[in-house]
Amino acid sequence: MNTIFRQNQLYTFLLYCNDTYLNKEVLDCGAGGNIPPLAIFSEQGYKTYGIDISSDQISRAKKFEEKNNLNLAIKQGDMRSLPFKDGSISFIYSYNSIFHMRKEEIRKVIKEIHRVLPLGGLAFINFASTNDWRSTIGECVGQGEYLQEENGQKILHSYFAENEAEKYFEGFKIIYKENRIREGYANAETKITLGFIDYIVEKI
Amino acid sequence: MNTIFRQNQLYTFLLYCNDTYLNKEVLDCGAGGNIPPLAIFSEQGYKTYGIDISSDQISRAKKFEEKNNLNLAIKQGDMRSLPFKDGSISFIYSYNSIFHMRKEEIRKVIKEIHRVLPLGGLAFINFASTNDWRSTIGECVGQGEYLQEENGQKILHSYFAENEAEKYFEGFKIIYKENRIREGYANAETKITLGFIDYIVEKI
Repeated sequence: MNTIFRQNQLYTFLLYCNDTYLNKEVLDCGAGGNIPPLAIFSEQGYKTYGIDISSDQISRAKKFEEKNNLNLAIKQGDMRSLPFKDGSISFIYSYNSIFHMRKEEIRKVIKEIHRVLPLGGLAFINFASTNDWRSTIGECVGQGEYLQEENGQKILHSYFAENEAEKYFEGFKIIYKENRIREGYANAETKITLGFIDYIVEKI
Repeated sequence: MNTIFRQNQLYTFLLYCNDTYLNKEVLDCGAGGNIPPLAIFSEQGYKTYGIDISSDQISRAKKFEEKNNLNLAIKQGDMRSLPFKDGSISFIYSYNSIFHMRKEEIRKVIKEIHRVLPLGGLAFINFASTNDWRSTIGECVGQGEYLQEENGQKILHSYFAENEAEKYFEGFKIIYKENRIREGYANAETKITLGFIDYIVEKI
């Protein structure tokens, strides 16, 4: 496999995981898609587990797995109720996924992640921030919560102020936080600003 | 080679380079060190060139090259006068390197990078930002320019406000910019904030 991943935080999280003495096992929440990030964990000798709520995204990942002769163990599932025992998985990764839920649901998901990690276990979780150009676009359904059109569907996005998400990290220590404001082009003319806040947290 | 690079922007730049039709050739300015980033370009089929002003850093890279059976063509050289012909290298990468110069020198280096790139060529350049906890520490020798103690030596660091560096990008189009504010721990007790601004620019 010679794949380069667009989500470059994946590499940062992997280095943090490699740097512990915990069992090499990782769960990706929102694990599907054309280039499943679990592939690089697998290549680095990790036992992988994935869940995704979308069967389409799981099918896309399966195609990648077949092409690259991998079995990443991605199943359909819901982050709000993780099908894993307490303290059973050392590392949990969730990229550009959790903020498609309402804020009260996000709180529940992070409690679930806490439950499934052992002491010292690490999670990567990122949030869309209020720096994002879309952060007030669409139908407002709650504070910082918007329904936005994407490919003809209404998709929920929750946006977070700089430290807002940290209230969910009870029982965790934040060991890494990056507030990223990215400027780029949606097309040749349209300049846009994307905002994300990435966390790596350790269960304490 | 199964190396994961700490400088995760490297992967982002590589994807931008892979996405063009230019010759696969890359120059790293500040190319030395224990894990030379040119290694991943080499793995992806690029012809590599590197310069570094420090013979120590070049020796470290050589050890990596020997261990991994690579020849990355890293030579001693000075970014202020690149030993390459006009328009001769498609991609130029410079990570955590340029801001160890004074601002007027940085202007010259970026002019040199512009000279060596062909039309459409891409450069990755990053800057330390005024969000960094060290941005007013040390002996001030110019606006945002500080001499700071590092391993017993006085090392120059230039810090940039959010859009300040953009005046140097005459003849370039900024196609990617990320303003990153990272919080982490220098050790178990000391929390610090690091600030960087990354650019990918295209010669126009």
